[in-house]
Amino acid sequence: MRQNVQFITVAVKDLEVSRRFYSHGLGWRPVLDITDVVFYQVGHGLLLSLFPLLDFAADVGAPISIDSGFSLGQVVETKPEVDDAIERAREAGAKILKEPQDAAFGGYHSYFADPDGHRWEVAWNPGFSVAEDGTVSISEIG
Amino acid sequence: MRQNVQFITVAVKDLEVSRRFYSHGLGWRPVLDITDVVFYQVGHGLLLSLFPLLDFAADVGAPISIDSGFSLGQVVETKPEVDDAIERAREAGAKILKEPQDAAFGGYHSYFADPDGHRWEVAWNPGFSVAEDGTVSISEIG
Repeated sequence: MRQNVQFITVAVKDLEVSRRFYSHGLGWRPVLDITDVVFYQVGHGLLLSLFPLLDFAADVGAPISIDSGFSLGQVVETKPEVDDAIERAREAGAKILKEPQDAAFGGYHSYFADPDGHRWEVAWNPGFSVAEDGTVSISEIG
Repeated sequence: MRQNVQFITVAVKDLEVSRRFYSHGLGWRPVLDITDVVFYQVGHGLLLSLFPLLDFAADVGAPISIDSGFSLGQVVETKPEVDDAIERAREAGAKILKEPQDAAFGGYHSYFADPDGHRWEVAWNPGFSVAEDGTVSISEIG
């Protein structure tokens, strides 16, 4: 399990309200803004994503409440790296919420919970790439 | 309100349990590991911090439950930038949880909640710096 984060995902009740807050209220520019998710680049190789609660819970495969609705995501280079990271987390005592499997977005991923229940996603995501200057590209795949 | 994140803070029930999970279980190396907080560098200019629940709630100045216990933090260059960011967030409809003020860590900060209650901290923190290669230094101040 490498020591890095590429995604901060937060659950939202109403994507239109949240999109308005971040894109119009704060004036942020999305990297990708599609029907059911909005991504903002918030650092070198780092995305913040707004994800509707029910879609988020379906993706995790476990219930989420709005106020506990966040996860930290790590992108790895290959599918076996997802398996390896999850085995390491399991040995460390993590609760596996979703065993490694093909993901709805077209990649391969898994979720676990740390000792306090904070969620981590480890994903192989061929639609995600980072340029030398830290700029992220993300596209729909699959 | 700039479009970036330098801190991901998660609440922990028992810092020793969490420190063991991340530092020993996952094998991560802390940037700073002191009595009441542990920081890990998880990206270019990006820190993840483990913060005991009661200390975290005291810092925010509002109650936090363990499962809703996280905040995203932005570091700005000057105190007036904290004020400006918070005014922008207020105009955008954010609920200000803690008005801009001197912080226990020696800097100056404020917390607000986005439309779903997710917390953001905006801080001037003279103990935080990022080298050209993205390496973070953080030290206790004040």
